[in-house]
Amino acid sequence: MAIGVFDSGIGGLTVFRTIAKEFPKLDIYYFGDTARVPYGIRSKDTIIKYTTECIDYLVKHYNLEAIVIACNSASSYAIDSLKIKFNLPVLGVIDPGVRAALTTTKTNNILVIGTKATVNSNAYPNKINQISPLTKIYQQACPLFVPIVEEGLFNHKVAETMVKEYLSPYIDKIDTVILGCTHYPLLKETISKLYPDLNLVDSSIAILDDLRNLQITFNESGKRLIHITDKTQSFETLKNILAGNTPFKIVSM
Amino acid sequence: MAIGVFDSGIGGLTVFRTIAKEFPKLDIYYFGDTARVPYGIRSKDTIIKYTTECIDYLVKHYNLEAIVIACNSASSYAIDSLKIKFNLPVLGVIDPGVRAALTTTKTNNILVIGTKATVNSNAYPNKINQISPLTKIYQQACPLFVPIVEEGLFNHKVAETMVKEYLSPYIDKIDTVILGCTHYPLLKETISKLYPDLNLVDSSIAILDDLRNLQITFNESGKRLIHITDKTQSFETLKNILAGNTPFKIVSM
Repeated sequence: MAIGVFDSGIGGLTVFRTIAKEFPKLDIYYFGDTARVPYGIRSKDTIIKYTTECIDYLVKHYNLEAIVIACNSASSYAIDSLKIKFNLPVLGVIDPGVRAALTTTKTNNILVIGTKATVNSNAYPNKINQISPLTKIYQQACPLFVPIVEEGLFNHKVAETMVKEYLSPYIDKIDTVILGCTHYPLLKETISKLYPDLNLVDSSIAILDDLRNLQITFNESGKRLIHITDKTQSFETLKNILAGNTPFKIVSM
Repeated sequence: MAIGVFDSGIGGLTVFRTIAKEFPKLDIYYFGDTARVPYGIRSKDTIIKYTTECIDYLVKHYNLEAIVIACNSASSYAIDSLKIKFNLPVLGVIDPGVRAALTTTKTNNILVIGTKATVNSNAYPNKINQISPLTKIYQQACPLFVPIVEEGLFNHKVAETMVKEYLSPYIDKIDTVILGCTHYPLLKETISKLYPDLNLVDSSIAILDDLRNLQITFNESGKRLIHITDKTQSFETLKNILAGNTPFKIVSM
């Protein structure tokens, strides 16, 4: 058997890479909806509709044991609806990100950065408040980070300009930042260079514990296949960086 | 009767605004495919498929006399296919942009800036070479300009940083820039501040001559309606700037 990893685009390949490295024998089927990316600017109803269509494709084609929703926007809005529709464990990135952040923070002051959809959903603050009502949470949408990463500009001065723009208002107030978007781990270096004392929480690492807890049968052949809905230039750029020579196929949606 | 104005998103409202101002009595139906924007990163087949679906909606709902394709990516790839499918005049932004640039340049050295799709299509160089084979043409994809404009950051230093990044290699070589994307007119001020001697060609103005030449019946009521496929925050920002209180409706695609 196998797991599916879904993302609105190719940023989720950061999650794919982490899982693939940790579980070399697991069969992993990645689905990136590159024809309709980015989800982060779309409404809740549209995000649920698109996510359901893509997961439906994976479930119909592979004998999946679990689904990982690598996309924060989809995790924020679609998880509940997906759990109802598909009779499978559906793991999002919100819960593991929250647990890691609460374990990491010493001052109990956390900044969540993400797309507009993720921030507007309040998924991170709601979850943090359930577990730790006294934690102070700030949120900042960083809509330029995704295009910066997709253009491979994460070490360019434009990345520094926008990291300062988005993060500087919070630096004196917080000690931990949740990277609430799959693209953001590629900006870790730039953020740490500017703000070396910040703790950065990367959900793609935090989610590994959830996978271990599922006790999936990890004795497979380590088969991997990436599905995309459109072959874009950004896909080629990031796929080379994050997934090397993993095979891919294009699926029409 | 009436015309349809199509764009992949809301950038085409720059064209809508120009036409609406010039022809106050014309009925104008705008369609922005905001659920599937941006087209500029998508493949040719996907751009043709999406554009055809949207125009089909307009044609079925309104008695159109002509269609304006405000989107450069769609103009680059889909115009021929649209002309075959719909029995109507279909005006793109490429031809008028080329004519205006050739009229404007004194040195016969032109830079075309646009999305990756527009640049990769070679639509502008091909057209310019047909008319003026000795004109030297440079092209530069500027993928960060659209998110910068949609975030309303056109006067922020990030706009200056990226204008310099994209344009500085060409400044000594050219005297005219074709703004090959509907969002770019909102960067005119920043570009002109940095490079005051450059001529900037705005297709939304150049297309007015093509409309006049069609001899449409301009004795209508000046009815306007904006159709979008998703209500996003960027839509609200740019609609207020570009289309004021024009009514809109959401269409599912």
